[in-house]
Amino acid sequence: MQTTKADLGVLGLGVMGAMLALNFADNGKFNVGLFNRTVEKATRLKTDNPDLAERLHPSETLEDFVASLATPRVIVLMLSAGSAVDEQIAQLQPLLEDGDIVIDAGNADFNDTRRRNALYDGTGLHFVGMGVSGGESGARHGPSIMVGGSAEAWTRLKPLLEPIAAKYDGSPCIDWLGTDGAGHFVKTIHNGIEYADMQMIAEIYAILRDGAGQGAGDIGAVFADWNTRGLSSYLIEITASVLKEVDAETGKPLVDFIVDEAGQKGTGRWSVIEAQKLGIGATALEAAVAARCVSAARAMRLTAAGIYDDIPVESGVFGATAADIAELESALEIAKIVAYAQGYAVLDAASKEFGWDLPMGEIARIWRAGCIIRSVLLQDIMQAYAGGAKVENLLLVPAFADRIKAGQGALRKVVAKAAAAGIPVPALSSALAYFDDLRRARGAANLVQGQRDYFGAHTFRRLDRDGVFHHIWPEA
Amino acid sequence: MQTTKADLGVLGLGVMGAMLALNFADNGKFNVGLFNRTVEKATRLKTDNPDLAERLHPSETLEDFVASLATPRVIVLMLSAGSAVDEQIAQLQPLLEDGDIVIDAGNADFNDTRRRNALYDGTGLHFVGMGVSGGESGARHGPSIMVGGSAEAWTRLKPLLEPIAAKYDGSPCIDWLGTDGAGHFVKTIHNGIEYADMQMIAEIYAILRDGAGQGAGDIGAVFADWNTRGLSSYLIEITASVLKEVDAETGKPLVDFIVDEAGQKGTGRWSVIEAQKLGIGATALEAAVAARCVSAARAMRLTAAGIYDDIPVESGVFGATAADIAELESALEIAKIVAYAQGYAVLDAASKEFGWDLPMGEIARIWRAGCIIRSVLLQDIMQAYAGGAKVENLLLVPAFADRIKAGQGALRKVVAKAAAAGIPVPALSSALAYFDDLRRARGAANLVQGQRDYFGAHTFRRLDRDGVFHHIWPEA
Repeated sequence: MQTTKADLGVLGLGVMGAMLALNFADNGKFNVGLFNRTVEKATRLKTDNPDLAERLHPSETLEDFVASLATPRVIVLMLSAGSAVDEQIAQLQPLLEDGDIVIDAGNADFNDTRRRNALYDGTGLHFVGMGVSGGESGARHGPSIMVGGSAEAWTRLKPLLEPIAAKYDGSPCIDWLGTDGAGHFVKTIHNGIEYADMQMIAEIYAILRDGAGQGAGDIGAVFADWNTRGLSSYLIEITASVLKEVDAETGKPLVDFIVDEAGQKGTGRWSVIEAQKLGIGATALEAAVAARCVSAARAMRLTAAGIYDDIPVESGVFGATAADIAELESALEIAKIVAYAQGYAVLDAASKEFGWDLPMGEIARIWRAGCIIRSVLLQDIMQAYAGGAKVENLLLVPAFADRIKAGQGALRKVVAKAAAAGIPVPALSSALAYFDDLRRARGAANLVQGQRDYFGAHTFRRLDRDGVFHHIWPEA
Repeated sequence: MQTTKADLGVLGLGVMGAMLALNFADNGKFNVGLFNRTVEKATRLKTDNPDLAERLHPSETLEDFVASLATPRVIVLMLSAGSAVDEQIAQLQPLLEDGDIVIDAGNADFNDTRRRNALYDGTGLHFVGMGVSGGESGARHGPSIMVGGSAEAWTRLKPLLEPIAAKYDGSPCIDWLGTDGAGHFVKTIHNGIEYADMQMIAEIYAILRDGAGQGAGDIGAVFADWNTRGLSSYLIEITASVLKEVDAETGKPLVDFIVDEAGQKGTGRWSVIEAQKLGIGATALEAAVAARCVSAARAMRLTAAGIYDDIPVESGVFGATAADIAELESALEIAKIVAYAQGYAVLDAASKEFGWDLPMGEIARIWRAGCIIRSVLLQDIMQAYAGGAKVENLLLVPAFADRIKAGQGALRKVVAKAAAAGIPVPALSSALAYFDDLRRARGAANLVQGQRDYFGAHTFRRLDRDGVFHHIWPEA
């Protein structure tokens, strides 16, 4: 029996939960209560980590686990999203006392988090939805943490959570972002941006591989070089590592053996569904999610490839000279800015819709280290919001506008060449189209409004006078 | 007091409800009970239509309305989607009797329809979700009707509904598509396709206007010409009409005075949200919904236009020679086929997910007349499913593959030129990217899987051996 109570408990010891528990014990020097449905996982975590064992306190039953925690308690759930969380919350409910805080640290749908938060209203308990990004290594050594819930809960959680968060220039990458589902919402959009970032990188990879005939190692070297400048980011860095990795058995690039079917666990999809609900055209994120869906239909792709293999497309439109590579670098950088602008536009719309008053600059700040999309670009985004600046869209911020003006021509050329070469660039072309659409004073939706008024009497407005008009159109 | 009972009742006499009621009285020769919250609308519908007055029977209260209908009753609701429908159902409930059928003929979210359908389970009442397409004129003279609900209800409804449906070569454009929400789901996807179709037309319009410097009347003539061939459709036809229409006051093209902010009522958004939930990359539909969102942010667009107005883009890449026009025609035709293939892929996935066994060829058949997306293309789609043929994706069907092979080069050129000219073509470029991605035997998702395994230990499969692998990557 332990004599002192644990500072907090971690419930659910899969990879992410186990790493988070070790992080609390290691970087926080906290005593951590442990519980897992398969009890052995909790005891093994202690025995497998002798240097941290004195601060790891596994329990064999949920009751013992709850009793092992100092009150008011802090319990971190790290479970699969969905019904498992609801069931666990229901089982915990009778064991908890006034002031206890339950944190859902998994990738929850923020709608669920809002619902669960509302369940706790008036019970004296606190429910906190907390987005944790950084994968296994981040969870162990310092993730980026996005907290949503009551301000009161945050005041108590801050000293427990700051020590385990990633640090950027010594400052912890964690903040309270707003009430109820704010943390999980921001994490969802983080993941949507991550999908777009990864997809754009994959599109450039395909151009270099199929358009310019480069091998994986050479392409890896290109990304490694890009990682020293404006595109510098964790994703570019690991892309270089992945591409350079050699298969031990064959001595050939490992990536060439990996099946081209991308998996997804739902957060990317959630991000674009929420964007849709909010009326924000997050087209680069959508293109990325869709591309994973298309990739997963590999058998159908093989059939289609057989049917369409005689289509003549232009070869030689892409090269691998220094100028060609620089053009791709510039194109990727501009497209990436557009994708981030779309993600931020979704955050902005959600902030208004749900009354969160999201601290936009803070979000960029806490994404600068620990999380999957950490990059130098986030430093620039943080600066765009400096001093609480109101930003309608990141593409309107002078610093970004200057970069886009300088680089948009490259994106334009890459999209045009890819169309000619038959290489799909759904995310890059979506980003270009969004940019060109946004900067167009006179769009084409006047025709759409004319059509809608024609068939549905939906009315339109006029440029030359106020009011709402319905025209009596001639019969078709 | 009327002596004979009405054959059915229409509740909710906005534009669509009123037109549907007149259609029942006119084309069905049915006695139609009428009710509207604002009672005057019901009485005025009768007085305004003297030739049909003998078959129009307004009631002043909901109770009188229900009592005026022959039993078992058929009540057609035509209300705004959402809570109004739930409230009306609740008010009707105590007045109904065993065997009565309530039809929601509005644009419902099919999830609501499934929920409402389940509410009726075991009550002896029937709830039918019915998609009605064709706008005001269609509702009055013959819409395309997509019915979802029990087979038993359909048997009784068929003779009441067939007379009011559009006819194609004499055959009514109506069918029972499946249980519960099947009808409303199919209508939702119909509308998503409609959004894509309209957006692609608008993109071509913008190319002719901004890229080739053509006036609205000339562009209208182009669409009128296209309407005689492969693109022949209601939307192309009304596009020509809208573009040719002259503003009475100024003598200039009316479309040039219409504000370029597109409205939307939600069905397009529903369609892409459902596509996302089903894991189908309906990118052309998504691009169309997003483009309406961007168009609606007109003030921001004007700001952005000011910031970016000095971007040099290529001029003269688009022309208006016969060859140029033919290229645009071909590009639009191919992109449209891709959009329809995406819409059908969503239908196919939903059919499996919800156990509807949707009759895919029938859906094309009943869309050939009455609805907004009626076109000669639907005849071809119907034939693709002839004899109950299983179609994995319409792009794999030989008849479409031949057309795509012949026309894809044009789409490729138009997308490339638009990128160079700075004219946004989000739907056209999404369609091209989807096609190029689908026909690619070796995609780029192997890199994505490598990245995912790197940061999240998500594992990958290999081309050269079975199994699921996790690689120990070097530290970044």
